[in-house]
Amino acid sequence: MFSHIDHIGIAVKSIEAALPFYRDILGLKNIRIQDVPEQKVRVAMVRIGEVKVELLEPLGEGSPVQKFIEKRGEGIHHIALSTDDIHGEIRRLRAAGIQLVTENPTPRGNEYEVIFLHPSSTGRVLIELCQPVKGRR
Amino acid sequence: MFSHIDHIGIAVKSIEAALPFYRDILGLKNIRIQDVPEQKVRVAMVRIGEVKVELLEPLGEGSPVQKFIEKRGEGIHHIALSTDDIHGEIRRLRAAGIQLVTENPTPRGNEYEVIFLHPSSTGRVLIELCQPVKGRR
Repeated sequence: MFSHIDHIGIAVKSIEAALPFYRDILGLKNIRIQDVPEQKVRVAMVRIGEVKVELLEPLGEGSPVQKFIEKRGEGIHHIALSTDDIHGEIRRLRAAGIQLVTENPTPRGNEYEVIFLHPSSTGRVLIELCQPVKGRR
Repeated sequence: MFSHIDHIGIAVKSIEAALPFYRDILGLKNIRIQDVPEQKVRVAMVRIGEVKVELLEPLGEGSPVQKFIEKRGEGIHHIALSTDDIHGEIRRLRAAGIQLVTENPTPRGNEYEVIFLHPSSTGRVLIELCQPVKGRR
């Protein structure tokens, strides 16, 4: 089913303000920052072991991460599970009665195809499935 | 500094109600359930890759997890980073101005020594440092 956690998403107001804690205090490495306008976020990825920590800063009006921060404040936003067969997993989850946030997976930058499970099906934990685009990791 | 994420803690009202999703839908394995009365929680551990998912059910009056659920609802509670030198890390973090929730690490069951960083020092992410007791993992 799922081999490992690909990343943990953390909502922050400002990557510039949040990154020094992860980089200098926790010592996490491999920092990459990119804008993902289709999801209205700026993303900074750092790595610890096999897991990435994804800092999510709202980008523009109506950003879902902005809404999250307004409602719950900064903090842990979601957990992403890695899969090599996102379409098969979607069929399996639907057959088990799990609600998904979108009908189909959507591209996330040029790295992943992703889909979110609806929190009503997961005990209020926002869970993402993500499949790396072939050749990327 | 920190080699990997030891576990992600998730606050649930009932392990009995939450566990089937993690076990049957997500397919996570190695289920162990134990009571940790000194922290007023019942804990179910499941594993995915190098990370454990720790379901935390309140146990008794005044449980911090119960307070978390009353305030924020069920959901992701904390991230625990593994260290082999918790006392050294505490000195290093204090020197860097990071606030800790307790003065010293405390035992967690017979498996770990743990200490929490104060959310005011971490951008509202509850971060635990945990050192496995020798011979356990």
